[in-house]
Amino acid sequence: MQKIKEHSLAEILKIHENGKINVASNAPIKDYETLSAVYTPGVAKICRAVEADPALAKKYTIAGNTVAIVTDGTAVLGLGDIGALAGLPVMEGKAALFREFGGVNAFPILLDTKDTNEIIETILRIAPTFGGINLEDIAAPRCFEIERRLKEKLNIPVFHDDQHGTAVVTLAGLFNALKVVNKKLADVKIVINGAGAAGIAVARLLLASGAGYITLCDREGAIHAGRAGLNPEKMLIAALTNQAGLRGGVNEILAGQDVFIGVSVKDALTAAAVKTMNKDPIVFAMANPDPEIRPELIVDTAAVIATGRSDYPNQINNVLCFPGMFKGAFAARATDITQEMCLAAARAIAACVAENDLSRNNIIPSVFDKNVAEGVAGAVAEAWQKYGR
Amino acid sequence: MQKIKEHSLAEILKIHENGKINVASNAPIKDYETLSAVYTPGVAKICRAVEADPALAKKYTIAGNTVAIVTDGTAVLGLGDIGALAGLPVMEGKAALFREFGGVNAFPILLDTKDTNEIIETILRIAPTFGGINLEDIAAPRCFEIERRLKEKLNIPVFHDDQHGTAVVTLAGLFNALKVVNKKLADVKIVINGAGAAGIAVARLLLASGAGYITLCDREGAIHAGRAGLNPEKMLIAALTNQAGLRGGVNEILAGQDVFIGVSVKDALTAAAVKTMNKDPIVFAMANPDPEIRPELIVDTAAVIATGRSDYPNQINNVLCFPGMFKGAFAARATDITQEMCLAAARAIAACVAENDLSRNNIIPSVFDKNVAEGVAGAVAEAWQKYGR
Repeated sequence: MQKIKEHSLAEILKIHENGKINVASNAPIKDYETLSAVYTPGVAKICRAVEADPALAKKYTIAGNTVAIVTDGTAVLGLGDIGALAGLPVMEGKAALFREFGGVNAFPILLDTKDTNEIIETILRIAPTFGGINLEDIAAPRCFEIERRLKEKLNIPVFHDDQHGTAVVTLAGLFNALKVVNKKLADVKIVINGAGAAGIAVARLLLASGAGYITLCDREGAIHAGRAGLNPEKMLIAALTNQAGLRGGVNEILAGQDVFIGVSVKDALTAAAVKTMNKDPIVFAMANPDPEIRPELIVDTAAVIATGRSDYPNQINNVLCFPGMFKGAFAARATDITQEMCLAAARAIAACVAENDLSRNNIIPSVFDKNVAEGVAGAVAEAWQKYGR
Repeated sequence: MQKIKEHSLAEILKIHENGKINVASNAPIKDYETLSAVYTPGVAKICRAVEADPALAKKYTIAGNTVAIVTDGTAVLGLGDIGALAGLPVMEGKAALFREFGGVNAFPILLDTKDTNEIIETILRIAPTFGGINLEDIAAPRCFEIERRLKEKLNIPVFHDDQHGTAVVTLAGLFNALKVVNKKLADVKIVINGAGAAGIAVARLLLASGAGYITLCDREGAIHAGRAGLNPEKMLIAALTNQAGLRGGVNEILAGQDVFIGVSVKDALTAAAVKTMNKDPIVFAMANPDPEIRPELIVDTAAVIATGRSDYPNQINNVLCFPGMFKGAFAARATDITQEMCLAAARAIAACVAENDLSRNNIIPSVFDKNVAEGVAGAVAEAWQKYGR
C-alpha cells in the first residue's frame, strides 16, 4: 500500500480558495488591433459567418470543444444528495482534469432543480454554448431518463460519467485482469454489487462486450426477473442477466463465481465470501473512498484486486476515460457517444499496459500515463468514423 | 483619426480558431497528492463544509468570482437578431475582456429561447454556479423585464451591460466633456437619440446624477407623454423627460440644445442640425460600427465629439466599466448592482483623466489604462459598503 498524504481540512480549504479553475483569454489583449479583432468591430465578421453557416461554430467558437459538467447535486461522490452548490468543488475538479488530462474545456453547470423534466428542459435551453454534455452525480433512476431523452434531442455527445465512465474503466481493468488469470470474458461468472447508475451501466457494457454470465445485486440481494418491486431499469437488466436464477445476498451467491465488481458501499463484501469463489477470483472493490472490502483482508485469496483508490494498486479511476472520450468525440465531430466508442475506449485503456508488464498488481495504467487520453481519443474517434451513430 | 487595421475575414477566422477563451486549472495536477486534494477523496471535505455552510461557496469555489454572460442573441452588436450561436464570438470576446481587464472569470451562456419567462426561469435554474449575471445583447423591451425580475429573485449582482454599462461610460464621458466646455449637468439641454435599452438607461442614469433637461427621440421623433403607442418603458421615461414638450425628428429639435447623445444608427444626425445647437455643442455619436455622423463633418462645429470607435479620439467603450464593476461587486460581496454603484463607477472612470490633461480630444481614459478597472472596482465596492441595496 502506497501512502498518499491525507489532507487536513485547513489544507483543503487553502487549495480551494477562489475555486480551482479559471476562464482565460487564448491571447493577450494589449493593443487596439487585437481588441478590434476579438471584440467590436472585427468580431462582427465572424458573427455574420456563423449566422450564415451555423456549422462554422464548431471550428471558430468554444462550442466545438467545450463540455458542460451538469449536476443537480443529488448523488455527489459517496455523499449523496448534498445539493448542487456543495457539489461544485467536485465539478471544478472535474473541469480541471478535463483540461489537464484531455486538453478539453469544461465548465460546471449547477442546476437549482431536481425535477427530471426541468433538468432536461434547462439543459436543452443552454446547450448551444457546448460541444458536449457530461452529466455528473445525478441520482438513479432519474439519470437514465435524463440521459436517454437528451441523447434523443441533442446532436452533441451526452455522457453520464457515473454510468459509462465507470463502465469503460471497469471493463478495461477486467480485460487485463482476465489475461492475468487466463480466463475468458464469455466464460466467467460475474457478480456486480450495486444496481444504481454505475452497476447497470457496467452490466450493459459487459454484455455488449461478450460477457456470458452476469448477476446484479442490490441491497435486497440478487436481481432476477421474478423479483417484485423492481424499477423499470432493473426490470430491463433482470431480463438479460442472472440466467442461473440466483437468490440471496451478495455474500451468499458468490460461491462458484469468478469476478466480483463492487459499485456499492463500504464493507459490503466479506473475506469469507471471497473464499467461496472459483479459483483465482477477481475482486474489483470500487466503493469510494472506502472499498467493499479492505484489500489487506483478501490479498492471499484473490488473484487480482482493484479499487477506486490511488493508495492501492490497480486504481479504477474515471479520469482514465472522460478526458480522452470527449477529446476524441470532438476531434471526430461525433454527434453522440455510442457503445462502440465506449468499447473502443476500454480496449485503448487496457492496451496502455503492455502484455509483458501485466501482473496482478498492474492491470490498469496510471492516471498520469500521458498515453491514455491520446489512446482513448484516437480509438473513440476511429470508432465514430467507422460505425457512426 | 488614428488608423486601426481592419482585419480581413480570413484574419478574423484565423484568430477565432477553436474559440477565444479556455477553461484552465488554477494549479497543475501532476501527482497523486494534488489529485487527491482537488478531486476524490480530498474534495469531499470541502463539499461537506459547503453543505454545512453554503456561504463558504463564495470563498472556496468559482461561485464567488464568476460571471455568466447570458444572451438570447436577439440584439447582437448592431447586427440584430442573429441568434445566440452567432453571438457566441461576442460573448467569448467579452469573457476574454473580463479576464484581461478585470481579472474576473466569465463564461458565455447561450439561450435557445427568446421567451421572456423561459429566459428568466432558465437563468434562475443555472444561477448557483455564478457570482453574477451579465445580460448581453438581449433586445428591448424584454430586457427590462428580464433584468427587473432577476434582480428581485436573485441575491447576486445582475447587470444588463447594454443598458447600464453604456450609461456609466456615457456619463463618465459627459462629466469630463462638460468640464471642457465649462457647463453644468443641471443646466444643459440634452437630446438622446435611440430609446431602446441603452437610450433609456442613459436617460435614467443622467436623471439620477442631476441632469435637468433631457429629451429622448426614437425613430418617430421626440418622445413626450402625450404620444400615442408608447411601450411601457417609454411611457415611464416620457413622464420624466421632455418638459419643454418638443415635437419632431431629432434633427429638427436640436436647435438650442447643448448635448447630443446617439445610441441609434449610422447617419441619424446631420451636420446642419449640429450647427443649430447652442454654443460649444457636445456630440456623442456612439452607433457601432458606424456613428450617427462622421466626426470629420462636424469637427469645426462641435466642441467635443465622442464615438464608440477606437480610431477616433474619445472612445466610449463599455469595457471601461464592466470588468471593474463586477470585480468591485465581488470584492464587496455585493448582492446587487445599484444606481449608487453605477454613479460611483462613472465618477471613477472620469477621474482617470487628470484635470490638467482634459481637452476636447481627451475626455475619457484609454481602455488600456490599467487604473480604470482598479478605480471602478474600488469605487463600486465602496458605494456598496456605504449605501447597500
